[in-house]
Amino acid sequence: MAGPKGNAVIGQSGGPTAVINRSFIGAIMEARKHDEILELYGARHGIQGMLNNEYVPLFEQPNFVLQQIAKTPAAALGSIRHKPTKDECLKIFDNFKKMNVRYFFYIGGNDSAETAYIINSYAASEGYDLRVVHIPKTIDNDLLVTDHCPGYGSASKYVASAFIGDNEDNRALKGVKINVCMGRNAGFLTASSLLAKQYPKDGPHLVYLPENPFNIDRFLEDVDRTFKEHGRALIAISEGINKQGIYNLKNGEKPEYISTWLNNFVQINLPDKYKPKADTTSVEVDSHGNVALSGSGMLGDLLAIIVKSTLNIKRVRADTLGYPQRSFPLAISDVDAYEAYRVGVDAVVAAVQNNFDEGSIAIRRIEDKGRYEIETFVTPLQSVQRNTKSFPKEWIKEDGTIDERKFREYASPLVGELPMAGRFVKAIF
Amino acid sequence: MAGPKGNAVIGQSGGPTAVINRSFIGAIMEARKHDEILELYGARHGIQGMLNNEYVPLFEQPNFVLQQIAKTPAAALGSIRHKPTKDECLKIFDNFKKMNVRYFFYIGGNDSAETAYIINSYAASEGYDLRVVHIPKTIDNDLLVTDHCPGYGSASKYVASAFIGDNEDNRALKGVKINVCMGRNAGFLTASSLLAKQYPKDGPHLVYLPENPFNIDRFLEDVDRTFKEHGRALIAISEGINKQGIYNLKNGEKPEYISTWLNNFVQINLPDKYKPKADTTSVEVDSHGNVALSGSGMLGDLLAIIVKSTLNIKRVRADTLGYPQRSFPLAISDVDAYEAYRVGVDAVVAAVQNNFDEGSIAIRRIEDKGRYEIETFVTPLQSVQRNTKSFPKEWIKEDGTIDERKFREYASPLVGELPMAGRFVKAIF
Repeated sequence: MAGPKGNAVIGQSGGPTAVINRSFIGAIMEARKHDEILELYGARHGIQGMLNNEYVPLFEQPNFVLQQIAKTPAAALGSIRHKPTKDECLKIFDNFKKMNVRYFFYIGGNDSAETAYIINSYAASEGYDLRVVHIPKTIDNDLLVTDHCPGYGSASKYVASAFIGDNEDNRALKGVKINVCMGRNAGFLTASSLLAKQYPKDGPHLVYLPENPFNIDRFLEDVDRTFKEHGRALIAISEGINKQGIYNLKNGEKPEYISTWLNNFVQINLPDKYKPKADTTSVEVDSHGNVALSGSGMLGDLLAIIVKSTLNIKRVRADTLGYPQRSFPLAISDVDAYEAYRVGVDAVVAAVQNNFDEGSIAIRRIEDKGRYEIETFVTPLQSVQRNTKSFPKEWIKEDGTIDERKFREYASPLVGELPMAGRFVKAIF
Repeated sequence: MAGPKGNAVIGQSGGPTAVINRSFIGAIMEARKHDEILELYGARHGIQGMLNNEYVPLFEQPNFVLQQIAKTPAAALGSIRHKPTKDECLKIFDNFKKMNVRYFFYIGGNDSAETAYIINSYAASEGYDLRVVHIPKTIDNDLLVTDHCPGYGSASKYVASAFIGDNEDNRALKGVKINVCMGRNAGFLTASSLLAKQYPKDGPHLVYLPENPFNIDRFLEDVDRTFKEHGRALIAISEGINKQGIYNLKNGEKPEYISTWLNNFVQINLPDKYKPKADTTSVEVDSHGNVALSGSGMLGDLLAIIVKSTLNIKRVRADTLGYPQRSFPLAISDVDAYEAYRVGVDAVVAAVQNNFDEGSIAIRRIEDKGRYEIETFVTPLQSVQRNTKSFPKEWIKEDGTIDERKFREYASPLVGELPMAGRFVKAIF
């Protein structure tokens, strides 16, 4: 039984990824095949476009344009970070009714799933036939139910490739190098740095996930031991360690978190005219005019200073890997690109052909093939909204380090082939 | 007339690049062809290996290993940042004599050329037949004489690709984005961000080179104007703007440099045990225990704060592009890879076959071909040591902005094809 006849709306939300446009274009290409969808409208900047009726009609776009957009990182329709209120969701639903919208596809993370869920609830309560399907994306890989999220594989390929290069750099000019990775709450992307290891002594030698409580003294011991063993240390650290970890806290243990220092305001000697004032700007300012620096950029610098000053190591550097993790156009994973496109297609199939009233497209592995293969399925919106997934506790060993074999089995197929570093034979260094 | 028979030494120096190993392997492959070279020894960590006789014999390495190393970023032999004293140069020359070294190839920037020059001077003064050839590399592209430096094309490809992705990101989530690029003294790499522009409204909208004096008020005017015009601003800024520029200073003009604020020490509320002490660490500390944060990481954060607080723009972000600029394995330019290999080959040819006593391999364009083509030539070491090249004044317009056409003509052939972003037709945004 096919779905109702009417218009469709698609939107993109949250932080961009390198492949979110694949899902978007996949949905367009599939929607064109179904007579039930009269026109597919792209909402500009997600809910903002839906609130203000800012749409791009998509069926008229030529194929060569769509195929080029598919290969382009970030969100071609524009994205948004705002989570709508219930009133705003109601207004969107009213707009949908006026436009005879019968299909709503929303590409995003768990907040987007929640928005989709609320809008669908209004439709259900009025008996208005609206099909709502959420299309997953996030570089953080933190959506529930699904095995993994489109966007994560390419972000991982970037992180692993950056560490492959930086491991060579760190071997050439020995010292301590700290790379701060994205993923404020989930450690999946930081863990992807481990895929860079190709030879026994390769870095990252130390990996810190947000799920583990971060103790600065243990960190310094780790760095000291690693530096003594290898004459260098390459370190992956989540931007989210500046918070309380959720795993490996022993009963009564109270690690000394660095968050208290990072949250302190930093005094910068700016001339008065450039100084932020507490009431007029979005910069966090204390009563003395001191400024709160953004956590992640500061984190690497701060740790580098502490390593230098306590361990007395001369060459200590920190990089924050930043936006290239989610938008670098030359590190897109083939598998990730394929799957992102596929969840876009499958969202339309689910709504139009398979008669799902609502849901989110999820991915599961087919385990008995002896090779990596997936299938998609529809999971209720409620099962993916609000809560998120953490790095699995089963992959973290007693001592807080990651079980590399288990993580590699999971992540390698999503990332695909990585550039292979060369090494001399018979030279022991 | 061929060169003398004896051993050869090769070393790598300075900051790694993505293609320095191509030059290295090019030299090995060529050296193998010449009976005059009995063995080619790779010095571990440049002059450090030459001082301590730490060498890798290279002729025994299998071809497949060498070809894999060629594709690997950074310096396979290890690199070093130390500039040797004259006494150390003398010791290296003494070691060379004992090893019957007749050829010395040194891959690096202008400091490496100077080291090579000094060692060659000792050989000349003793009448010892030593051929010394410097092989150019630097992502900064600041060597004199040569049209451009191997390493720059790949670093540019990284920077341009990062800006292509980030331009899409910034279009999707509008705001001000500041990306700090490498190149402390020369603006070539920062200017490469301009290669990212593919459509009329693309960023980077503003580019700041170290050669131009940086005035914070002019910067804020620029950002304000750009943000009002495009609703967003993507900005490329050199890590070196925190210094006095050399161009466009009008008579008597004294711009207000931000360097004075950046050089001020930042007060961080670290617990005493982690606080750097002025006499025991390499962290710069003032008498109050305040810390000098590394300029470039801090620069983006600081500018973001000033933009936020004075222009009252909500979404302002900064990234420091960091080490991936010089070591990312997935952004290597074909032309750069070819030329890096070629200068390695040509260095050996110059010394063994073409009888040059000393020199540095330089690149010039053959202008009348109607396509990009180069030839190499040998320039005396003295012509490339010590001084460096700045971004050409002729490419900077009266108002301080870059002449994009001139720069593109120069840089595009070195970078090669870049990923092309897709755009809707008939949609004006």
